[in-house]
Amino acid sequence: MGNILLRNVRLAGKRVDVAIQGQHFEQIGPDLSFQAETVIDGQGKAIIPPFFNAHTHAAMTLLRGYADDMELHTWLTRHIWPLEAKIQPEDVYTGTKLACLEMIKSGTVFFNDMYWHLPDTARAVQEMGLRAALSSVFIDFNDPKTAQKRWQECQELFAVSRQFSSRITFALGPHAIYSVSENSLCQARDLAQKHNLLIHLHLSETAKEVEDCQHKHGCRPVRYLKKLGLLGPNLIACHAIWLSQDEMDLLAKHQVTVVHNPVSNLKLGSGTFAYRALQERGVRVILGTDGCSSNNNLDMLETMKFASLVAKGSTQDPTIFPASQAFAAATRQGALAFGLNSGQIAEGMLADCVLIDQDIPQLTPDHNLISNLVYSAGSECVHTVICDGKILMQERHVQDEEGIMEQARESARRLVQA
Amino acid sequence: MGNILLRNVRLAGKRVDVAIQGQHFEQIGPDLSFQAETVIDGQGKAIIPPFFNAHTHAAMTLLRGYADDMELHTWLTRHIWPLEAKIQPEDVYTGTKLACLEMIKSGTVFFNDMYWHLPDTARAVQEMGLRAALSSVFIDFNDPKTAQKRWQECQELFAVSRQFSSRITFALGPHAIYSVSENSLCQARDLAQKHNLLIHLHLSETAKEVEDCQHKHGCRPVRYLKKLGLLGPNLIACHAIWLSQDEMDLLAKHQVTVVHNPVSNLKLGSGTFAYRALQERGVRVILGTDGCSSNNNLDMLETMKFASLVAKGSTQDPTIFPASQAFAAATRQGALAFGLNSGQIAEGMLADCVLIDQDIPQLTPDHNLISNLVYSAGSECVHTVICDGKILMQERHVQDEEGIMEQARESARRLVQA
Repeated sequence: MGNILLRNVRLAGKRVDVAIQGQHFEQIGPDLSFQAETVIDGQGKAIIPPFFNAHTHAAMTLLRGYADDMELHTWLTRHIWPLEAKIQPEDVYTGTKLACLEMIKSGTVFFNDMYWHLPDTARAVQEMGLRAALSSVFIDFNDPKTAQKRWQECQELFAVSRQFSSRITFALGPHAIYSVSENSLCQARDLAQKHNLLIHLHLSETAKEVEDCQHKHGCRPVRYLKKLGLLGPNLIACHAIWLSQDEMDLLAKHQVTVVHNPVSNLKLGSGTFAYRALQERGVRVILGTDGCSSNNNLDMLETMKFASLVAKGSTQDPTIFPASQAFAAATRQGALAFGLNSGQIAEGMLADCVLIDQDIPQLTPDHNLISNLVYSAGSECVHTVICDGKILMQERHVQDEEGIMEQARESARRLVQA
Repeated sequence: MGNILLRNVRLAGKRVDVAIQGQHFEQIGPDLSFQAETVIDGQGKAIIPPFFNAHTHAAMTLLRGYADDMELHTWLTRHIWPLEAKIQPEDVYTGTKLACLEMIKSGTVFFNDMYWHLPDTARAVQEMGLRAALSSVFIDFNDPKTAQKRWQECQELFAVSRQFSSRITFALGPHAIYSVSENSLCQARDLAQKHNLLIHLHLSETAKEVEDCQHKHGCRPVRYLKKLGLLGPNLIACHAIWLSQDEMDLLAKHQVTVVHNPVSNLKLGSGTFAYRALQERGVRVILGTDGCSSNNNLDMLETMKFASLVAKGSTQDPTIFPASQAFAAATRQGALAFGLNSGQIAEGMLADCVLIDQDIPQLTPDHNLISNLVYSAGSECVHTVICDGKILMQERHVQDEEGIMEQARESARRLVQA
């Protein structure tokens, strides 16, 4: 593997060289002497950690703009589900490749995915060079036969996943408490415990989910998960909008990670995320885009701005969720939640980084880089992206962009016409 | 003036040629034969109207990222105002040039500005080739002597403005009802009536403004303006967040234009804009970015997304403010509010347009161009910008970008250090 030397990049206001050996940052400091096959001139560029997109359904890029501005039930039953029913493994591959391309071009090197045809998602990730935590969608709707079939598939996928790149983590994806039986949730808990797996779950995204849970189980969703023994540091709970004080205390106590998806929550009118209350309790809040049919992009720069501003707007407090917190939630905190030795530019850490072109109007003047990134920048400032010590994008160029887009267009056309 | 022919651009799904003669669209149709000095290949590009930024303080680009995440009073009194007090005419020129550059690069060709040193703003606009409605900040804080001085300046500026480019409209800028005396508001009304001028005013941005008005004038702000005879089609009321039903009825009845600034409202925690109630009454709602210290960019693509999504989120209704309405609010409706024969790609209209590069991941696939623009696109898709029949940007290149950014950086450095 070829070593890389980044010359004269700005790191926290200082000019340094960054030496990458294999998968790691080997040395960081001024005027390094380091043998490298690739030397990149970092003049005018800042080096920052890349973004970690903590919740998405990558292949849904194919549905971008297909059905918007609709009431949730109509949207799902008449538009999204009928189209998704036609999605073939090859479509998941082409859609995920498009997603990877879009993420690389906006500075993201990791995503936490839940979708069907997981091996095809993995194939796309492997080719594109990103990191990912991949879970298949586990839904049994309380039907034991379906559950049994799904569990068999899940075990098979877990076995297959051992062949995947080391950049891919296999995770369990029980979709939500209303779509997965109690028994299956317990099986997920046990399998996760046995093999040290993450559990990726949609939690309390709508008020209806909470009402239904109270009606069916006599308690709110987080209490229900507590009863089943699912609360723990390996639980990645997405959305988590409709929470009581008691539930927030439980999430904090059990070190559950909460993924906030501000754009999706607004677009679907799901409800208002209680950032302050969670943050005060010390809950780890990280950021995701959700899938392209409810966002409609995978841009973490934009997601940071929405997260920070929605918190300010909903509390009428402009001091809440400052830029530094939004940036940490999208970078280092995301890496930590997924057990990755990444998300910081420091010696010994995984060589994941982004070079930011500061010669861009939206980043001018340069009073505060983090503020400019969170509140002003568009993805055009993302100049170079490195993941696992390999260059995924240089000078905004990713390999075979045209081919990836054309393949995705073909899949999308087929889905709409079929 | 050289004629322009845009070959094979996509207009509403069809492939056409667009011929520009002088300042206007001369002919639109397939395979035109038209003598042009400049021919642009529009293959893979869609032609759309440009954006109209209906409220900003352009030169405040210099303060981008200088002071964020602060309580309003601290922010204004300790950070923004002390810096603004040091701003020289030359800084307004360099800051506005940076703003114009940023706006061109994100597809905006018109902005409605309120700031000090208006002739220097005008100089920047003239050089950069955009359109603008320019008003000076009129504040007298109820002091008759200040008022007299400001009126003299205002009259002088009005006289000077007759020398400006035809792309610039002079407008009156009484800052807000709490910062301008009743007498001055009435003088603005009379001058506007006499010379057919627009009035650019901040209205009901905070709950405090409403409370203070009720205390001082015995009625809410819109009623107060009604009493003074300021309500009319020439009033551009910015923010308009804290409105009663009665006030919304009045705005509708008098055909006042309301400028919604969704990003600024969230960032400052100002309150929630009542889009549905205003739209149901037929009030013209258009979109603005506000200045860079409360946004922190001038990107109308982003502003469309925030406007639509904040309306959905705050009402928990995903059908409200659909993409088509957001797009119209940022384009044609903006042009109409400022009396411009622009904002539509049609023969006889002013030749203002944007070519959109559709070969971009965030615009792929192409189920719906408008949805992709409102909900997904970043400014990187803005490929070519034409205003008044002149090319301001081609293939994302604007003349002297480096020089404009460097001048702005110098101004910003001086302001912070001084």
